[in-house]
Amino acid sequence: MLLHLMTWTEVEDYLGRHKGILIPIGSTEQHGPTGLLGTDALCPEIIAKHAAAEDPDIIIGPTFNVGCAQHHMAFPGSMTLRPSTMIAALTDWITSLTRHGFEKIYFLNGHGGNVSTVKAAFSEVYAERSLAAPGSNGPQVRCHLQNWWELEGIFNLCKELFPSGHGSHATPSEVAVTFFAYPDKARNTVLDPKIAPMGPILDAEDYRRRFPDGRIGSDPSTATPELGEKIVTATAKALMTSYGKFVAA
Amino acid sequence: MLLHLMTWTEVEDYLGRHKGILIPIGSTEQHGPTGLLGTDALCPEIIAKHAAAEDPDIIIGPTFNVGCAQHHMAFPGSMTLRPSTMIAALTDWITSLTRHGFEKIYFLNGHGGNVSTVKAAFSEVYAERSLAAPGSNGPQVRCHLQNWWELEGIFNLCKELFPSGHGSHATPSEVAVTFFAYPDKARNTVLDPKIAPMGPILDAEDYRRRFPDGRIGSDPSTATPELGEKIVTATAKALMTSYGKFVAA
Amino acid sequence: MLLHLMTWTEVEDYLGRHKGILIPIGSTEQHGPTGLLGTDALCPEIIAKHAAAEDPDIIIGPTFNVGCAQHHMAFPGSMTLRPSTMIAALTDWITSLTRHGFEKIYFLNGHGGNVSTVKAAFSEVYAERSLAAPGSNGPQVRCHLQNWWELEGIFNLCKELFPSGHGSHATPSEVAVTFFAYPDKARNTVLDPKIAPMGPILDAEDYRRRFPDGRIGSDPSTATPELGEKIVTATAKALMTSYGKFVAA
Amino acid sequence: MLLHLMTWTEVEDYLGRHKGILIPIGSTEQHGPTGLLGTDALCPEIIAKHAAAEDPDIIIGPTFNVGCAQHHMAFPGSMTLRPSTMIAALTDWITSLTRHGFEKIYFLNGHGGNVSTVKAAFSEVYAERSLAAPGSNGPQVRCHLQNWWELEGIFNLCKELFPSGHGSHATPSEVAVTFFAYPDKARNTVLDPKIAPMGPILDAEDYRRRFPDGRIGSDPSTATPELGEKIVTATAKALMTSYGKFVAA
Amino acid sequence: MLLHLMTWTEVEDYLGRHKGILIPIGSTEQHGPTGLLGTDALCPEIIAKHAAAEDPDIIIGPTFNVGCAQHHMAFPGSMTLRPSTMIAALTDWITSLTRHGFEKIYFLNGHGGNVSTVKAAFSEVYAERSLAAPGSNGPQVRCHLQNWWELEGIFNLCKELFPSGHGSHATPSEVAVTFFAYPDKARNTVLDPKIAPMGPILDAEDYRRRFPDGRIGSDPSTATPELGEKIVTATAKALMTSYGKFVAA
Amino acid sequence: MLLHLMTWTEVEDYLGRHKGILIPIGSTEQHGPTGLLGTDALCPEIIAKHAAAEDPDIIIGPTFNVGCAQHHMAFPGSMTLRPSTMIAALTDWITSLTRHGFEKIYFLNGHGGNVSTVKAAFSEVYAERSLAAPGSNGPQVRCHLQNWWELEGIFNLCKELFPSGHGSHATPSEVAVTFFAYPDKARNTVLDPKIAPMGPILDAEDYRRRFPDGRIGSDPSTATPELGEKIVTATAKALMTSYGKFVAA
Repeated sequence: MLLHLMTWTEVEDYLGRHKGILIPIGSTEQHGPTGLLGTDALCPEIIAKHAAAEDPDIIIGPTFNVGCAQHHMAFPGSMTLRPSTMIAALTDWITSLTRHGFEKIYFLNGHGGNVSTVKAAFSEVYAERSLAAPGSNGPQVRCHLQNWWELEGIFNLCKELFPSGHGSHATPSEVAVTFFAYPDKARNTVLDPKIAPMGPILDAEDYRRRFPDGRIGSDPSTATPELGEKIVTATAKALMTSYGKFVAA
Repeated sequence: MLLHLMTWTEVEDYLGRHKGILIPIGSTEQHGPTGLLGTDALCPEIIAKHAAAEDPDIIIGPTFNVGCAQHHMAFPGSMTLRPSTMIAALTDWITSLTRHGFEKIYFLNGHGGNVSTVKAAFSEVYAERSLAAPGSNGPQVRCHLQNWWELEGIFNLCKELFPSGHGSHATPSEVAVTFFAYPDKARNTVLDPKIAPMGPILDAEDYRRRFPDGRIGSDPSTATPELGEKIVTATAKALMTSYGKFVAA
Repeated sequence: MLLHLMTWTEVEDYLGRHKGILIPIGSTEQHGPTGLLGTDALCPEIIAKHAAAEDPDIIIGPTFNVGCAQHHMAFPGSMTLRPSTMIAALTDWITSLTRHGFEKIYFLNGHGGNVSTVKAAFSEVYAERSLAAPGSNGPQVRCHLQNWWELEGIFNLCKELFPSGHGSHATPSEVAVTFFAYPDKARNTVLDPKIAPMGPILDAEDYRRRFPDGRIGSDPSTATPELGEKIVTATAKALMTSYGKFVAA
Repeated sequence: MLLHLMTWTEVEDYLGRHKGILIPIGSTEQHGPTGLLGTDALCPEIIAKHAAAEDPDIIIGPTFNVGCAQHHMAFPGSMTLRPSTMIAALTDWITSLTRHGFEKIYFLNGHGGNVSTVKAAFSEVYAERSLAAPGSNGPQVRCHLQNWWELEGIFNLCKELFPSGHGSHATPSEVAVTFFAYPDKARNTVLDPKIAPMGPILDAEDYRRRFPDGRIGSDPSTATPELGEKIVTATAKALMTSYGKFVAA
Repeated sequence: MLLHLMTWTEVEDYLGRHKGILIPIGSTEQHGPTGLLGTDALCPEIIAKHAAAEDPDIIIGPTFNVGCAQHHMAFPGSMTLRPSTMIAALTDWITSLTRHGFEKIYFLNGHGGNVSTVKAAFSEVYAERSLAAPGSNGPQVRCHLQNWWELEGIFNLCKELFPSGHGSHATPSEVAVTFFAYPDKARNTVLDPKIAPMGPILDAEDYRRRFPDGRIGSDPSTATPELGEKIVTATAKALMTSYGKFVAA
Repeated sequence: MLLHLMTWTEVEDYLGRHKGILIPIGSTEQHGPTGLLGTDALCPEIIAKHAAAEDPDIIIGPTFNVGCAQHHMAFPGSMTLRPSTMIAALTDWITSLTRHGFEKIYFLNGHGGNVSTVKAAFSEVYAERSLAAPGSNGPQVRCHLQNWWELEGIFNLCKELFPSGHGSHATPSEVAVTFFAYPDKARNTVLDPKIAPMGPILDAEDYRRRFPDGRIGSDPSTATPELGEKIVTATAKALMTSYGKFVAA
């Protein structure tokens, strides 16, 4: 079920039975010459919807679609929150959900650059409780961040499908996932160099100097809708297992 | 064009010709017994996509999908940002876009409760320039907030389609727009009272006392996909005119 | 009664009988070649004092005298808060008053540029309650923002007194109100053009380019102390009615 | 001259000749059984206006009328900003003034509880310049905080006029200054004990336990309008000297 | 005892008997040609450890080692917090300690530039309690800021040991204290002028113009480890008395 | 060299030759029944000083000694910053250093709970540059976070020295490092269970329920000063290599 397509009475009923919710979280940022700006928000959204279509007990919340992408700001179309802003926003999202009784909040993440800030946001939420006088806390909240490509078995699958040039940004895996969901956007081009360079991530101008077309270590030219489907199917399955364990814990 | 389905090189090309972008902005909040939680984010998104499908020169950015909805927090599933958080987030969104050269940022809004905070955010962005030493500013940015139901001719159309019980929250118009886009979610129920009461909006517990099923002054029971289509078609057309004037000014 | 001229024991007594307070709120910003920098703070202060002189049950709090005026910063003497700062300040003012038991806080506003930010501040205050666990709230607070020129009958009176060139900034009405209270400051000058241009409000440098002497759409040259008195008398009366309804609701 | 009674063109002219401005800053807080809630804002305002009436080269800005008074919050009518809010507000006030070319900003203070926070705000403003790259700064700004009772000779005068029970809060000196300006508010009552106790200042509930009627170490029962006039006359004179030196430095 | 060399069970035991803690607080900033960058953090740390070595009932918390030093930023190696940052950090430190039951928090300060901001931070902490509804507060917290050179008898001792050129920054007293603790860092050089100039403290570039080698009014060339020892011994003794009174009050 | 034991002229000279600095960063938090509250700040400080004693080209800045430890707040003596506070503080530290020309800032970290927030702080600093107009940036800054136990070869060494019960909090490795530096604090006790349980880290009360004596997965009873020395020696060596590569890159 998608939260935004439910009524409040349906959510009230749901909360009588379950306490978990799944939030796709990503970024809006360049993904090389062929990847879509929305890749990192689309991937967790696509995978989560796929899982929710199979399991009626999963609620998918709104997608957090602009994240921490300061390093991509020299490429047009990229958007970013400052980490301090993102912590404030996530605090409000989580507080809103716990207000209603959600106790297990699972963030399915599509962007490595979000990881630190999302975890810092969890600590910000927990700190509010931890600094309060002992015994004054309300019901517990438990947050979890899961990168989709680190779900069990998925990274191996991706490397198997794309044995060369998987890299770490604008990877063929994530590009394939979006091509599966938006096949009319599937495209290819001659990449030069075929496999992009590797290197550290600092600020935006430095990034563009190091990675002129935006890719890091990747060759997304082999991404296809068909391979994307394989990834989505496998990842959605792994997600159901992972989410199920989390809400049951 | 949808920004999240474009590549950065396409945006770079676009910026050589145009400086405008359209951002749907809404909320995730209860909309009565039959309206969807995502109504206020879905309506501007639906209308904007409809317009962009007709006019290839419009770029639609990511939807700002959780807004200022503190007053709905006594209804499960509603989510809110604090106004101070929303100002910080919008400041980062706008700063990201102006960094690339966008100069005209048009927010198509689906939620009355956002209006004050979005306008305050615009002032926050302008204040940064206005407090700087004279002559030190970069290229100008111009922001515009447009409620979709206040586009030219639209409010009259809505009142004409729903002469009784239009009200101000969970209106038949907005419910119809979402039923058009998600016809399998179209539903009806016996509402009691048929037309919801009116009253002031304060905090969440007060709101639920005044408006027990969430509606304000409305009777959404006459909303249908067919009437939604009429609204979407007319509003998308009015949007193209309004947006065109804004970016040309 | 003016809060700053009362003792704390008088306020304690008052709170045994009443829960309301009226706060004049304005701005310190240019008002064209003849209007005073304090116009927007002085008008609500003058009108509120006039009303309080008639009704001993109204307490007037301190005037919030610097507001959101970023767009006037290219004119010397103008002062502004950033919206985020103003939200923090108003939150502290309101929290201070509710701490003592005030439950109805009525802001009489003299500056259109404040409206969005003041309303956002109200939401910020309400959000604190609305995000708390159900049932954990203290006594309710209800805030109201009222532009003085929108009190019942006042805008029509102003247009009647100044049928031409009322405009929207440095209006003859507001200038007349200050001339009534500070007759030695009443002045006139040849304005060129007689009626100032209209246009959108963006940042400070843009504003000064569009409106070189500071006025928007107005011709304040017909403002006199006598006409100001008529406005003050009528507005104070309308204020008493409006305030009375608010605190009784 | 009072800034709020000037036009922007008068300020523009003034800035061609002078770079200084004087801001009265105080608090809205209980001042014992006979003192006014506005005492700390009124005193610097009264004294500053007295000085400005003598010296046409002094501009008096708006009064900063709610300050740091958390310790008075157990007495009805007291209002406070959090220190972090006050720093943000003062930063915006100072930045507004320096934007126009004011370079010497003199705060005449009426409340001991403001001192730390106002000085911290000055450092906040300076820090922005000091952390910038060398040589990148605009014109210098210099801020000064002056408690009115510490102007040369004034504290001795106060002790001479009130040799017993001067104390440190709700002092006969400050009460007399307000009685001079608002003679119809001059009042007296039997105080018990005649001279209030001394002690440390912590939070509000602690304060009210230690100082049940609000006074600290004072006996304001000897305050009269006549003695107030002596203080105002002498302090205004000392202020002119002090301010003159500051703007000339 | 030093908190960082204790186990949590030792602190738990301690809190069964005592409620006080002592926090050294200083700065990392230039101290003239011969003084150490850490002088202001080292002095209170040295003195506090000396006292704790004598009195096993004193717990010394971690040293707050970077403070408000914006004015020193034109001298390499200086570090600063903005006042607003320092208030946030101190609020978290104090809240952490009161969470465990510490009720008396004594800050032994080594840097005059910290005073305003530390006191503002205390008000920020108290304000949280003071703005809460009456009776809702937890156990009381009491904070105290003590400059080490203002402990009883110490300033006279310093002036006696260094009758000429004590000054106010890079004083021979503070330099001597660090030379006592780090004798291999004791050094001397020809200072020109022998006694540094006096003047106001504004921003960093202004500071370096006024005080080219960093000293204010001082001649630290007579500082020696031996004189430092005298100061440390006397100050540690005065500290034990002062701290003892504070925690007993 | 230790920054706090240098003069500003020494730092100025150093910056003529080198652009790097090393900051130890840790936490003040419980480390089980035998570990010191300062363990996480002491370990990187001890190791960094050891390295600096060998390599005169390394400057060690002040230790950031209170970090993100919300989860330990149910154990007396633990202290924490909220993540948002820590980001603000680190931003000021880094901005201070880059103001002087430091371009490579290496944080040697002793606390896993800091990692997310420190990385978020780096992004906050970079974002300021990345959101600025292209080409407007000053000299580049590059920050690096290094957990000491992840320096090359160190984790294997630790596991080799403590093949059983290394765990993840209050590990025998970190305890041994502090026992080496503070041998009089070396202690042992019967731990029950010998090896502490593992589990997720949420808020403070949850943590104490899961891990009653504070340890996670560890048996620190085999920690000795001698084994600590082996770790320090090896880690300092690995640090010199790692730091050398970083500043040379």
